[in-house]
Amino acid sequence: MMASRFLLALSLSLLVSAAIAETRQPRLTQGQQCRFQRISGAQPSMRIQSEGGITELWDERQEQFQCAGIVAMRNTIRPNGLSLPNYHPSPRLVYIERGQGLISIMSPGCAETYQVHRSQQAAERMEEPERQVRGSVRDLHQKVHRIRQGDIVAIPSGAAHWCYNDGSEDLVAVSINDVNHLSNQLDQKFRAFYLAGGVPRSGQQEQARETFHNIFRAFDADLLSEAFNVPQETIRRMQTEEQERGLIVMARERMQFVRPDEEEGEQERQGRQMSNGLEETFCTMKLRTNVESRREADIFSRQAGRVNVVDRNKLPILRYLDLSAEKGNLYANALISPDWSMSGHTIVYVTRGDAQIQVVDHSGQALMNDRVNQGDMFVVPQYYTSTARAGNNGFEWVAFKTTGSPMRSPLAGYTSVIRAMPLQVITNSYQVSPNQAQALKMNRGSQSFLLSPGGRMFQGGQRS
Amino acid sequence: MMASRFLLALSLSLLVSAAIAETRQPRLTQGQQCRFQRISGAQPSMRIQSEGGITELWDERQEQFQCAGIVAMRNTIRPNGLSLPNYHPSPRLVYIERGQGLISIMSPGCAETYQVHRSQQAAERMEEPERQVRGSVRDLHQKVHRIRQGDIVAIPSGAAHWCYNDGSEDLVAVSINDVNHLSNQLDQKFRAFYLAGGVPRSGQQEQARETFHNIFRAFDADLLSEAFNVPQETIRRMQTEEQERGLIVMARERMQFVRPDEEEGEQERQGRQMSNGLEETFCTMKLRTNVESRREADIFSRQAGRVNVVDRNKLPILRYLDLSAEKGNLYANALISPDWSMSGHTIVYVTRGDAQIQVVDHSGQALMNDRVNQGDMFVVPQYYTSTARAGNNGFEWVAFKTTGSPMRSPLAGYTSVIRAMPLQVITNSYQVSPNQAQALKMNRGSQSFLLSPGGRMFQGGQRS
Amino acid sequence: MMASRFLLALSLSLLVSAAIAETRQPRLTQGQQCRFQRISGAQPSMRIQSEGGITELWDERQEQFQCAGIVAMRNTIRPNGLSLPNYHPSPRLVYIERGQGLISIMSPGCAETYQVHRSQQAAERMEEPERQVRGSVRDLHQKVHRIRQGDIVAIPSGAAHWCYNDGSEDLVAVSINDVNHLSNQLDQKFRAFYLAGGVPRSGQQEQARETFHNIFRAFDADLLSEAFNVPQETIRRMQTEEQERGLIVMARERMQFVRPDEEEGEQERQGRQMSNGLEETFCTMKLRTNVESRREADIFSRQAGRVNVVDRNKLPILRYLDLSAEKGNLYANALISPDWSMSGHTIVYVTRGDAQIQVVDHSGQALMNDRVNQGDMFVVPQYYTSTARAGNNGFEWVAFKTTGSPMRSPLAGYTSVIRAMPLQVITNSYQVSPNQAQALKMNRGSQSFLLSPGGRMFQGGQRS
Repeated sequence: MMASRFLLALSLSLLVSAAIAETRQPRLTQGQQCRFQRISGAQPSMRIQSEGGITELWDERQEQFQCAGIVAMRNTIRPNGLSLPNYHPSPRLVYIERGQGLISIMSPGCAETYQVHRSQQAAERMEEPERQVRGSVRDLHQKVHRIRQGDIVAIPSGAAHWCYNDGSEDLVAVSINDVNHLSNQLDQKFRAFYLAGGVPRSGQQEQARETFHNIFRAFDADLLSEAFNVPQETIRRMQTEEQERGLIVMARERMQFVRPDEEEGEQERQGRQMSNGLEETFCTMKLRTNVESRREADIFSRQAGRVNVVDRNKLPILRYLDLSAEKGNLYANALISPDWSMSGHTIVYVTRGDAQIQVVDHSGQALMNDRVNQGDMFVVPQYYTSTARAGNNGFEWVAFKTTGSPMRSPLAGYTSVIRAMPLQVITNSYQVSPNQAQALKMNRGSQSFLLSPGGRMFQGGQRS
Repeated sequence: MMASRFLLALSLSLLVSAAIAETRQPRLTQGQQCRFQRISGAQPSMRIQSEGGITELWDERQEQFQCAGIVAMRNTIRPNGLSLPNYHPSPRLVYIERGQGLISIMSPGCAETYQVHRSQQAAERMEEPERQVRGSVRDLHQKVHRIRQGDIVAIPSGAAHWCYNDGSEDLVAVSINDVNHLSNQLDQKFRAFYLAGGVPRSGQQEQARETFHNIFRAFDADLLSEAFNVPQETIRRMQTEEQERGLIVMARERMQFVRPDEEEGEQERQGRQMSNGLEETFCTMKLRTNVESRREADIFSRQAGRVNVVDRNKLPILRYLDLSAEKGNLYANALISPDWSMSGHTIVYVTRGDAQIQVVDHSGQALMNDRVNQGDMFVVPQYYTSTARAGNNGFEWVAFKTTGSPMRSPLAGYTSVIRAMPLQVITNSYQVSPNQAQALKMNRGSQSFLLSPGGRMFQGGQRS
Repeated sequence: MMASRFLLALSLSLLVSAAIAETRQPRLTQGQQCRFQRISGAQPSMRIQSEGGITELWDERQEQFQCAGIVAMRNTIRPNGLSLPNYHPSPRLVYIERGQGLISIMSPGCAETYQVHRSQQAAERMEEPERQVRGSVRDLHQKVHRIRQGDIVAIPSGAAHWCYNDGSEDLVAVSINDVNHLSNQLDQKFRAFYLAGGVPRSGQQEQARETFHNIFRAFDADLLSEAFNVPQETIRRMQTEEQERGLIVMARERMQFVRPDEEEGEQERQGRQMSNGLEETFCTMKLRTNVESRREADIFSRQAGRVNVVDRNKLPILRYLDLSAEKGNLYANALISPDWSMSGHTIVYVTRGDAQIQVVDHSGQALMNDRVNQGDMFVVPQYYTSTARAGNNGFEWVAFKTTGSPMRSPLAGYTSVIRAMPLQVITNSYQVSPNQAQALKMNRGSQSFLLSPGGRMFQGGQRS
């Protein structure tokens, strides 16, 4: 028992230092080219149907995703569906678009924190197979996190995770995998290592089958039997991919886990300094937060909308992942100031409504001037200038960013570079009159980033 | 107004964290090959003539520049010329070879610090267009920095900047862009995003026109008009590239900016700890320093010359840019010890005189054994051994380095590896006598790096 | 003398900051592909015979080494042999497989710490050439480190080093060079810059001769003569590669260096905080440690074996090198749990015995299922799952890892992900009964990573 504790402590300390090491791991731009002629909204190009849900993938070979170095996917888990345990060589950032469920992200060295105490009553309600082991079973497991619509979830490279839909509607999760992140020392091909299951054979593309497969399958059954100290029969069940079940399976019974209310605990932890205790930094590090709180909007405009940001300050694990996200809501016909990102690519996924998007490159070419609709995804490359105008029904989006510290440089509004230029620089740069230059600088008044529609009505209030 | 303040504070904190994130972003060596047969001094290969000056570029496809991952340029701004506002995906380090002027480097979130107070008298002297708006205009703008011959200026990735020559002679600036720096998540192609102007059509190469262009040009005029809340007529002026004006324009009148004496303020700041206040670290961070002060030479030899270094210690912003520079002055016929750089490539630009340069690779081949003259630029790759002997008129150079912490390992002199070897290792390595080994170790006495000409006369003084 | 001190202090501070800069330099995966069909144990493919020993290189073009971004070599130095001073653009981690000797790793700016005091008696025993200079010679040199079988030695990028075998048996050193480390701004080709010697001509491959060559050879003799302030005759001896001597030479007499017992000093230093004094962090930083101490095993199992780890915590210089090593000893027929590395590639070198190795990829294919024997080297790529079973004579290995903070995620045992999963997740993932799931989680009891042979006998003790 001492040995076990020691091992736990050892792997814990290794984990912590690995996590710290990850801090200094930026991403590669290896192999990728950002020299496109055109960007446009894309829908998933591949669909893997499993017993308990659907996995959809955007085409990773599209130029815009290659440039950003990401692979995008959308998982739909049916009620009572279990997304099978798997890990991947790159960090993943997830947005829960719909539904609710439970997720567990397992890191070696982080103790199985909670013990499941099954009351007699609960045992009464168990299905037959469960009841057989009643009494003899005291199940320990790592933390299980409640996830809900609007959550952003961070999954570190190499950490195995599973997800269970215990709600009554589909759980829909949109995510990006940062294959260029330096925690990935393999090449930039997307890989997922499944601990169970595998891509069903029927009607699927060869590419997909190549990508996702049970890692137990290829091991020698005899050796695994000895390693786990279980009969070969058990191993053979683990190695079998029942082709029709796929990557997401239906649970035979409703799963229940005794969990403390981790949300409560997390909010408490938020108040503390992250850098105090090493054990705390990683194993108890918050892995999720909600990005849709109306009260906590980071940018809010009564006339134009609001944006919530989840960056390395709000979710400290993003220091290691060097990713971030924002959820935005633009009112009908409102605008986003033309701006460029100074610190990473932006991958936009439309969650509701529509908008006219313009993206411009350094050679003065419009790469995109399209209307995007719900379910579309597109990339605004770092440093490229873009703008958006919401349609008549408004525009809602979630954007993933390949930086833990997103920063925009707007061209119009209170915090813009135009406003930071002396009048004479504007008059000489654009050959406009001082009055025109003054209007360029000031006519958006104190608005910034989110701009109300029909700005003209704000000319009077510009100096308020 | 509260909202504006909040936005400012928000984008400020984002800026600071982005800056911090940049600390851990080293550079890529992607795609580049350092397997050349030959290195030689190069002159700019492309020239863009604008109304207010000239932009010259070295050929970025030359092997030596590819290996170093940099793009070199030289800007000449005529008196009263304005280099138009632009930004680029990679950090730039600039050396002011000649003249003086004003530069403004705009970062979102850094407040427009200084307010221009125009006295009545000043207004009297204004040109007509300026006078029209007198009274109604209170111009605020970000810090404007005075730059002079001998200055090193650091421009972070993505920060828009403009430069105005308010002197009476040409302002000549030589700079390198570190396209491999990891703050650049695009590919390693050199890009510049101009907020105004564009490459003139007449007689220019296609490549150049592709590279530099006004980002407003491709946006929808209607949308921009709404975003800035100004008439479309103003937008159309912004979108127009008056082809003959180019990237550097002549100001219609002499520009004047009220600035505090920022040099004074900066020297004061130098005394403080950089890590104390977060707001201070970035927005008020020094972006320039002079590299030609005779009193502050880092290496000085009465017989051989002097070298001034600008590294991450002297100009802390270089922690984020991971670049540095040195200005050297070698007396007639003096030598630089054969040495190798342990921490980055060295890009040398000859500012005066001439020298014989030798560069040797790991296979014992001489890659370079040439005389270089004023205006030549060449690369000494990291770890390659090089040496120089000044001509009869001496040799002056500025060297840019792709590291914030340059370090040389000399072969001869007081701090050399030969001196660090035990006698017996030298006698056995080279099959020389103990006396010869002793001479190899000691005959340069306390000289290091800068070696006086005709060393023989120093044999007597070697142990002083 | 003041000047010398100043220079020393200057280059010292540069060195320290360079070392710190190195912290944030992870490795590149540039150009490499990890899409192999097959991995197998490899023997060196190239052999360079020198006067004083042998240099063997594994084929750097093999897919497994390309994927890991390393070049592996084995040096055998005969008694009284001197491996000539050289440096390389990438960090090197060395394991001393056999014998003992002295190594000196020279960094510019680190003072020549120890003065050699030759007592009269010692001088009496000197060979003739040494005696000639007696009295006039007071030799200073940098620290010389004692190395012995079982040592791990860290050599930073660009630091020149030499090694002398003062023992009575061959000194055998196995090492890897991390050519993808970002301290290397050249391309990923392996280079070694020799300060003396060169690859002998006779019967060697062209490739080898291209790789290792005396950097003095290509310089102008006149210029070097002036730089060192010695006669041209001495320079010509330095430039000559006596072809038969090669990269390792025989010393003409037994070399003796007066050294303090640095082992003692190092153990004392280990107790101190590394981050206190800057000068201390680098110049006096420990460069070696022993990895074979039976008492200090990091993982120990009475039934299965033991593993010693040398990571960034045990040898702090590995923070800058971002490499680590482990020495393992597996008893006859014992197993290593199937696991994956979360933080780097693993390069395994077999030092004794044999084992059956299995490596599996994400598509469920077995890349390796081979028996490996003494002297074999193979790569387990990051995130790929592997396992091993020792043969009847046990299995001993040293593993180099391309991370300073190695971390494994085991599939079986006390700290495994299977154990971290709730029972219901296991039953639903593998369609096994709760009892079978319970057995999978618990049957290895408190064992972890190192698993005793014939695990079945542990079923009874699983809950102890």
